Amino acid sequence: MDELPWSTRPTPDRSGDRPVGEHLVRPEPLTRMAVAVLTAAGAPERNAGAVAASLVAADLAGHDSHGVRRLVPYVGAIRAGTLDPAAQPRVARSEGAGATVDGRGGFGQLAAALATREVRELARAHGVGVVAISRGNHIGRLSEYVEALAEAGLVGIAFCNADPTVAPHGGRDRLLGTNPLAWAVPRGPGESAVVIDFATAAVAEGKLALSAARGEHVPPGLLVDGDGRDSTDPADFYEGGALLPFGGAAGGHKGYGLSVMIEIVGGLLSGAGISSLPGYDGTNGSVLLAVDIAAFLPADRFREQTERFCRRLSASTPAHEDRSVLVPGELEARTRAHRLQHGIPLSTATWNELAALPGFALPEGDST
Amino acid sequence: MDELPWSTRPTPDRSGDRPVGEHLVRPEPLTRMAVAVLTAAGAPERNAGAVAASLVAADLAGHDSHGVRRLVPYVGAIRAGTLDPAAQPRVARSEGAGATVDGRGGFGQLAAALATREVRELARAHGVGVVAISRGNHIGRLSEYVEALAEAGLVGIAFCNADPTVAPHGGRDRLLGTNPLAWAVPRGPGESAVVIDFATAAVAEGKLALSAARGEHVPPGLLVDGDGRDSTDPADFYEGGALLPFGGAAGGHKGYGLSVMIEIVGGLLSGAGISSLPGYDGTNGSVLLAVDIAAFLPADRFREQTERFCRRLSASTPAHEDRSVLVPGELEARTRAHRLQHGIPLSTATWNELAALPGFALPEGDST
Repeated sequence: MDELPWSTRPTPDRSGDRPVGEHLVRPEPLTRMAVAVLTAAGAPERNAGAVAASLVAADLAGHDSHGVRRLVPYVGAIRAGTLDPAAQPRVARSEGAGATVDGRGGFGQLAAALATREVRELARAHGVGVVAISRGNHIGRLSEYVEALAEAGLVGIAFCNADPTVAPHGGRDRLLGTNPLAWAVPRGPGESAVVIDFATAAVAEGKLALSAARGEHVPPGLLVDGDGRDSTDPADFYEGGALLPFGGAAGGHKGYGLSVMIEIVGGLLSGAGISSLPGYDGTNGSVLLAVDIAAFLPADRFREQTERFCRRLSASTPAHEDRSVLVPGELEARTRAHRLQHGIPLSTATWNELAALPGFALPEGDST
Repeated sequence: MDELPWSTRPTPDRSGDRPVGEHLVRPEPLTRMAVAVLTAAGAPERNAGAVAASLVAADLAGHDSHGVRRLVPYVGAIRAGTLDPAAQPRVARSEGAGATVDGRGGFGQLAAALATREVRELARAHGVGVVAISRGNHIGRLSEYVEALAEAGLVGIAFCNADPTVAPHGGRDRLLGTNPLAWAVPRGPGESAVVIDFATAAVAEGKLALSAARGEHVPPGLLVDGDGRDSTDPADFYEGGALLPFGGAAGGHKGYGLSVMIEIVGGLLSGAGISSLPGYDGTNGSVLLAVDIAAFLPADRFREQTERFCRRLSASTPAHEDRSVLVPGELEARTRAHRLQHGIPLSTATWNELAALPGFALPEGDST
């Protein structure tokens, strides 16, 4: 598992003005490539297919940090013996409206998919359900699971902790994970869910790494250096610094507070542990919550009101003439539509990393 | 109900260097005064006592915006006929692990207290529970309810919508409430809960009003004027502007996303409605969630690990030498301890407003 798997916002789709050396790949061959790499690493066909579909779905949504480039650390973890590619998750305990899914050290996407189905059924039976995931490794992009819950007519909430890279508000030690939170509800028929999925850190490490490689500075408020000073130099993170919680001067204590709650509840209910305390097992300590909308009001009425509200947001006056107000999740839905039509951009660096993996095969025809 | 009942952070305790004209009042006479005012306005003794205790608890925690100054709008609402001071809330529907509490147009604190008891019992019986509150008017300070859940060995989460005063990220129209979120878990024995309770707006209206009255400007990132331009002049809010979601440049889209989810789920599950759509009933559309920790791990183990983590946070290196890292909720706990010993400061403006209410009586001896 990487230290910072969470991107705070989707990578802009640049297929219109692709830099030379970037590849555009259709989702189908990209999925076949991922299946081949995972199979070569020892995953049964069924596991490989599910994980590959999850990774390519993240690429389609523009969350490249959670896309096929994850194959590199996954294959590394399989080789290191920390990820069992053949493991099948199971429901370890289910009582009342609560359950625990044991990922058994396998792919987190499989554990999360099982947890999603379990929490969906619990919520339908009891009005609300909660499922924790133990031994789930890296569970991937949270929005995938809450979107599936929204499509089933539920309110879906998910969060997890992760390796400590983030300082508390007013501090400088790495004591918190990037601790993402996702939440989704259904819109009207034919519309994709309203969904949020963000790190409670101010920035994803993947973005910092990119800026560092380019020698660029980043805006203030994202990180501190090893002496706890505000920094705009991404290299300072790698030399003993820390990320900051999101919110900055306009609410850093709020981002910090959310991160602390996710660290405690995600880490302890799952059994993963609190990431900066002894005993943390290095996995995403994850919790999924689902509420059955139909237990409170007719689902159609909920969808109709939500759709009306979303349209009101979209039609509202933008602060800047050249922009528009977006409904949460709309950027990802647009990116998905665009990439389904035009292909998924892969940087040459990512391509080359993937090409070094056993089993890799992609048609070269699409590259620039 | 006021437009903006939510303070983003506690008022600093200034009893050490009180400005001339500020009053220091012990909690007991302050509670008696609140009971007398509420009783004079038509509340039965039992209702008056519960609401008074809730208001004074907010004052003790430093959240003066939710303290006894609320008596002024409450008495106004009773006179206007929008708040029934004698109403008793009831559980309108309970099925499986979900329930709805009907506040019956009475004091929101009473409905929220009943909802807190109900969700506690649901979580104990089923592992998790969810309760929505309808016709709850202004439900007061959310942290009171999630702290009570934490004290009962549960994870407590609460959120609600409110009158629209906040613009979407990238927009300028008032389409969202200040939509606060609260979340609490228990610490070790003898320690008060880890708790967050914040508006998803960048600033509380009460603070803006104070700055406006003093002719002061506020930091950037809190509001836009009627033309959607960033503003530091609080008067612009009152002349057609809007508050902004919290997070600013370091995560305004995250604060906005949270606010949208709370608006939809709080507004629709409760029946209050989405505040910027026709049909909104003007109340806090509230939802409480509780998870029974003991369904996942021994509660003692949870408390021990949480306590260890909190101490690790407290002992961590501050970014600035003259400050320290705080555990979420610690500032409020310190303020409570200090005010229990030294009294609750009331500004002369608040005192005078309260003194105009029928039934008001406070000993003058404590004033400066």
